[in-house]
Amino acid sequence: MTKTNPGYFFEDYHVGQVIRHATPRTLHDGDAAMYQALYGPRFALQSSWDFAAPGSKLRNPVMDDLIVFHTVFGKTVPDISLNAVANLGYAEGRFLASVESGDTLTARSEVIGVKENSNGKTGIVWVRTTGFKGDAMDLPVLSYVRWVMVRKRNAASSAPDPVVPELSDTVAAGDLIVPEGLDWTNYDFAAAGEPHRWSDYAVGEIIDHVDGVTLSEAEHMMATRLWQNTAKVHFDVTARPDGKRLIYGGHIISMARALSFNGLANAQLIAAINAGSHANPAFAGDTVRAWSEVLDKADTSAPSVGAVRLRLVATKGSEPGQLRGEDGKYLPEILLDLDYWALMPV
Amino acid sequence: MTKTNPGYFFEDYHVGQVIRHATPRTLHDGDAAMYQALYGPRFALQSSWDFAAPGSKLRNPVMDDLIVFHTVFGKTVPDISLNAVANLGYAEGRFLASVESGDTLTARSEVIGVKENSNGKTGIVWVRTTGFKGDAMDLPVLSYVRWVMVRKRNAASSAPDPVVPELSDTVAAGDLIVPEGLDWTNYDFAAAGEPHRWSDYAVGEIIDHVDGVTLSEAEHMMATRLWQNTAKVHFDVTARPDGKRLIYGGHIISMARALSFNGLANAQLIAAINAGSHANPAFAGDTVRAWSEVLDKADTSAPSVGAVRLRLVATKGSEPGQLRGEDGKYLPEILLDLDYWALMPV
Amino acid sequence: MTKTNPGYFFEDYHVGQVIRHATPRTLHDGDAAMYQALYGPRFALQSSWDFAAPGSKLRNPVMDDLIVFHTVFGKTVPDISLNAVANLGYAEGRFLASVESGDTLTARSEVIGVKENSNGKTGIVWVRTTGFKGDAMDLPVLSYVRWVMVRKRNAASSAPDPVVPELSDTVAAGDLIVPEGLDWTNYDFAAAGEPHRWSDYAVGEIIDHVDGVTLSEAEHMMATRLWQNTAKVHFDVTARPDGKRLIYGGHIISMARALSFNGLANAQLIAAINAGSHANPAFAGDTVRAWSEVLDKADTSAPSVGAVRLRLVATKGSEPGQLRGEDGKYLPEILLDLDYWALMPV
Repeated sequence: MTKTNPGYFFEDYHVGQVIRHATPRTLHDGDAAMYQALYGPRFALQSSWDFAAPGSKLRNPVMDDLIVFHTVFGKTVPDISLNAVANLGYAEGRFLASVESGDTLTARSEVIGVKENSNGKTGIVWVRTTGFKGDAMDLPVLSYVRWVMVRKRNAASSAPDPVVPELSDTVAAGDLIVPEGLDWTNYDFAAAGEPHRWSDYAVGEIIDHVDGVTLSEAEHMMATRLWQNTAKVHFDVTARPDGKRLIYGGHIISMARALSFNGLANAQLIAAINAGSHANPAFAGDTVRAWSEVLDKADTSAPSVGAVRLRLVATKGSEPGQLRGEDGKYLPEILLDLDYWALMPV
Repeated sequence: MTKTNPGYFFEDYHVGQVIRHATPRTLHDGDAAMYQALYGPRFALQSSWDFAAPGSKLRNPVMDDLIVFHTVFGKTVPDISLNAVANLGYAEGRFLASVESGDTLTARSEVIGVKENSNGKTGIVWVRTTGFKGDAMDLPVLSYVRWVMVRKRNAASSAPDPVVPELSDTVAAGDLIVPEGLDWTNYDFAAAGEPHRWSDYAVGEIIDHVDGVTLSEAEHMMATRLWQNTAKVHFDVTARPDGKRLIYGGHIISMARALSFNGLANAQLIAAINAGSHANPAFAGDTVRAWSEVLDKADTSAPSVGAVRLRLVATKGSEPGQLRGEDGKYLPEILLDLDYWALMPV
Repeated sequence: MTKTNPGYFFEDYHVGQVIRHATPRTLHDGDAAMYQALYGPRFALQSSWDFAAPGSKLRNPVMDDLIVFHTVFGKTVPDISLNAVANLGYAEGRFLASVESGDTLTARSEVIGVKENSNGKTGIVWVRTTGFKGDAMDLPVLSYVRWVMVRKRNAASSAPDPVVPELSDTVAAGDLIVPEGLDWTNYDFAAAGEPHRWSDYAVGEIIDHVDGVTLSEAEHMMATRLWQNTAKVHFDVTARPDGKRLIYGGHIISMARALSFNGLANAQLIAAINAGSHANPAFAGDTVRAWSEVLDKADTSAPSVGAVRLRLVATKGSEPGQLRGEDGKYLPEILLDLDYWALMPV
């Protein structure tokens, strides 16, 4: 019997199946320091243990929302995307509770859709993944839907009845979770780095985040390993015909989010991920820039906290505001098109 | 008087000499995060502070055994291998007590053998190195023998009486230390990532760990500095005629061990290092793969814990199971041949 | 209105102006581990939480002085040097209180001088920057003067009255702060790694630190992001005509300081920075070596602690002791010329 994990093939998934992913992971200050070195974020809430509760003595080393996302995502890789041909999309991502230094995360996925492709060689699998914390690992911290194209083990296998889940285009503003007790009435804009509050942003506004970062091999591999993501293509130059290491899409998300500080310094928390597309692959040597578009605004359950829906685009060469060509397809320079809700002081 | 450390030469060692190595080092969560980013290990015991004591509230941020090994090894470099021509072997390595976040380590070596080479220019020195923790630095955590070929300061120096220590081929199973209180009766195989328990492994079995990692300069230098290992050849392109930075052998050990998760996920702890050879040098750009062979199995003092003796081989191109050529020498692709005892749930 | 920070131009500064810099930053063990991996320091005081108070149970995870310097410096970049043409110098740098794991730092700068250059396109701005810690962010930890050449927004703007501050050539020995309670009467020289005490160093002595490190892109970018330093030239290959990423000068300071352990192992703390010049730019691929010259010696307020004034030079090729050519200019190989006070056991 082979002892190594061959990963799941399309035939191994059925709707209703629940997969408990391996390796609980305690997140801690060391992970925050690695994240700081890899992306250079300046959002005050994660940078300072005091910012969350100014004036109090509460120490609150809170993990960046994307640390939580990557950790949960990484756990799913051996079971969901080891034999994946493509990561097709995200939907209905919601951050449900904050994660602090010392919290241990686990993850579980439920298969909510399967559909064989007409070529008979691959199929699409939809899963809803949930990350948990707590002594009993029963407190959800993050939930999202992801769909991937997976190889069939055997082209001759018969196709399952197709089930395509109905997914929301966006998380409803009323479903956004504001961390308990969050009060930005006396928010310190000078400490946070920019004066722009929620009311200063207008739907349709485009923000050029100006700065660029040229990617390196060592950094994307360290990032990907930090989240225990084991997909071969990120590490092994022999895994692709072109001899290049494909950069984990989440590395681009984090880089773009960190760059977005310049213009969105007060978008302190990510409350939801509505949709996301890794439009083109990224490789070491690419220089990444980012721009954002304000898609929507909404109130939240906390009077001092507003929600802003943003499109965050990472590009290796196109101009701010450019996204698709005349054919409706992403421009070849676009690396990421992420649609998310952030929380800001009103 | 020159203030810098010239290192020891062969004439400076004599049997019975005890060398106290410099720079106590406190290991902590930050080191664990760096280790995670550099190698991507997924062993549950070190990944989750809760896994060691499921169901209890005990928080147990335990350091990976190889973090302990590298830290102790690094301390010996300025005194043992600064003028070494080659690192010839390891024996009788035993992990004696677990090291947790906040423990400070020191190291001491005793010279147990010296033998001048027939060329009159170099000699072999055997040392037994011990790492310690505790307020009084008197609790041993690791002990191992290493032998190195060292330059003579002066070819005209007379040769010492040769003393070659008798070393065990392998640590006896009865001498393996199981961490106090370790009870794997209710071990969570799903959380750990694989169902294979000690009884599922057969002597002679070979496990291909499948995954590969292409090495980068930045990563191996960061790893080596983390352990305060100062050997010039790892950092300085002018230190070797070929202009290449030689990768610290321990970097390959940790990379291979992390890769071995895929097939040996439940080999949670390293109990002993029986022998080890850095068969060929590794450089940035090499793609490392690993395979293991089950050499032996044994009971331990804990009923729920079994010991498995493994050969862990790192290679940059040969097939699993291939090790030596017809001439009995290691194949040129072999980077590491490590013989160790691991602990698994029975 | 553009939301992104355009940075300050020369016209935006006036003497007496106080700028409160953004993003409070909590330093912690994770930062210490990153620093360890990036530079490999071996100074016992920061390496071991026990060394500061041998024999006591006091745990003292103290941050390296340069971690404090880089953190404070990084905060000033968006306000002081985003449009800077050159970083001209440092003076009157004093470390005022130690920073431990968990302390949050903020920074503030006062403009103390402005002088337009004769070309009408740029001007020089002098600022005195102070870093703070404490619940009320009112405990100064570091103060230094820096002057930079900054672009004018509009060449037609009229020049301000020039104010050039009088700066000390060196911090007076009597102004050096010794951390409260520091007692090196029973200093452990063997643990620290070298036997040389304060009285063993002579003014005029030159110490070759021997070791070299070849720089990599990933490492300098990770270092620079760790301090939230956002200067484009360090990250973006399109930011300079030569397509090279300029390495943050502080990266060279830290590398040279770590290399200086070999010969200055007991220079445990930096008490003051008298002056500093980044003589030539450094790039990935350069191999850095370091040498020191003893410039002065002095007593301190603590009987067991001596102060030694050192010139620390980083070079990519020249010999120890070589600094300037016959024209009085730095040799092209010189990367750094730093003049600082260190504390050593007498």
